[in-house]
Amino acid sequence: MATKVELFYDVLSPYSWFAFETLCRYRGPWNLDLYFRPFFLGGLMNLAGNKPPMTVPNKAQYMQHDLQRGAEYFKVPLRNISDPVKTLFEKGSLPAMRFVTAVAKEKPTFVEEVSRQFWWRLWHHDEDITEAESFKEVGERAGLSKEDIQQCLEMLKTTAVKEKLKKETEYAYEKGAFGSPYIIAHANGEEHCFFGSDRFPILAMVLKKKWIGPDPLSPSELDGSMTSKL
Amino acid sequence: MATKVELFYDVLSPYSWFAFETLCRYRGPWNLDLYFRPFFLGGLMNLAGNKPPMTVPNKAQYMQHDLQRGAEYFKVPLRNISDPVKTLFEKGSLPAMRFVTAVAKEKPTFVEEVSRQFWWRLWHHDEDITEAESFKEVGERAGLSKEDIQQCLEMLKTTAVKEKLKKETEYAYEKGAFGSPYIIAHANGEEHCFFGSDRFPILAMVLKKKWIGPDPLSPSELDGSMTSKL
Repeated sequence: MATKVELFYDVLSPYSWFAFETLCRYRGPWNLDLYFRPFFLGGLMNLAGNKPPMTVPNKAQYMQHDLQRGAEYFKVPLRNISDPVKTLFEKGSLPAMRFVTAVAKEKPTFVEEVSRQFWWRLWHHDEDITEAESFKEVGERAGLSKEDIQQCLEMLKTTAVKEKLKKETEYAYEKGAFGSPYIIAHANGEEHCFFGSDRFPILAMVLKKKWIGPDPLSPSELDGSMTSKL
Repeated sequence: MATKVELFYDVLSPYSWFAFETLCRYRGPWNLDLYFRPFFLGGLMNLAGNKPPMTVPNKAQYMQHDLQRGAEYFKVPLRNISDPVKTLFEKGSLPAMRFVTAVAKEKPTFVEEVSRQFWWRLWHHDEDITEAESFKEVGERAGLSKEDIQQCLEMLKTTAVKEKLKKETEYAYEKGAFGSPYIIAHANGEEHCFFGSDRFPILAMVLKKKWIGPDPLSPSELDGSMTSKL
């Protein structure tokens, strides 16, 4: 039987990209029933009384190196962005996450690729993720039709979409989240919660699955991986 | 040639115990020249403008589970303590870290075992680490002579020991630390800094060594470990 795993994320969060791609890659090998749960990180931080790591200068400096090493390790094409204060704090992700929420309502099977395209846009190309034009490009790259994109754009300012995103954010908070990514794995009749992209070996332990590094199709020699068939 | 690795830690920090034991276990397999750098976490948090994770309620709750799963994964006999607010915030680690600093001055080869005994005392037995009687027990279990223990106790309130600990803490801050554990690996002519106990696979990548889980002498099947000789 497939294991239900919920991934709570905001595309503003670079570590969430690592977790997202890793879970997508393990969907087959670990037989995961993967649920995408886009939420609004800014709202969650307020609810949880948590502060972005970048507000601590030494942490901000550390993250620059840590993200680059993480990109190499997780094989995710993440690059540092040029103006993190403007991009992450001033512009933020509320419009983007509303777009993802609209897609989740209208075309749920496209949520995965739309999310990925937002990360590519923000965390690889260092491009805007707040304007209608940006959403059109993301939608096109994700394979949505022009009509679907238009419909999602029109839904952005509806109460239905705003409320849905708010509810998802509150739900994440109630489930114990205090940042992104947050993972809930349903196994052995329990909910096992994980924060961050650095607990996969422990998730593997809980699920009694084999962790062979961030890319199961190409296990790294240095990662101490098994080369035997899964 | 051995790789110089510095481990900055405070025995108040449970994740530091995971990192400490893991680095000790890899000292042989990875040919590490391991430097113990005890510092005062409370002082560092002030310098860095950082807040303890426990001040965010959802984080505090998460940590309880995360530590227990970590203990299992890292094979470290850590247990949750009964009154974390009193133990970690009111009593704290300043006297303990001064004792470790005195040991570092007088009997440096005992720093490793003295540190370990503090963790056993606090994070396994849920016992005091602030009283002279506690330091005596820690010293005895670590194999220090009664005379050496007495000498270290007398040094606790000297300016020399207080200043040494303060300087180590400031040094950690200058090197970019914002919490414990903090690791500096010297490799390829550079200093590579790591925060936390969850970056060992990435440390392995940087050092071009093989990561086979937290216990190289007993690689876990579920950890996807190689069973080949290191």
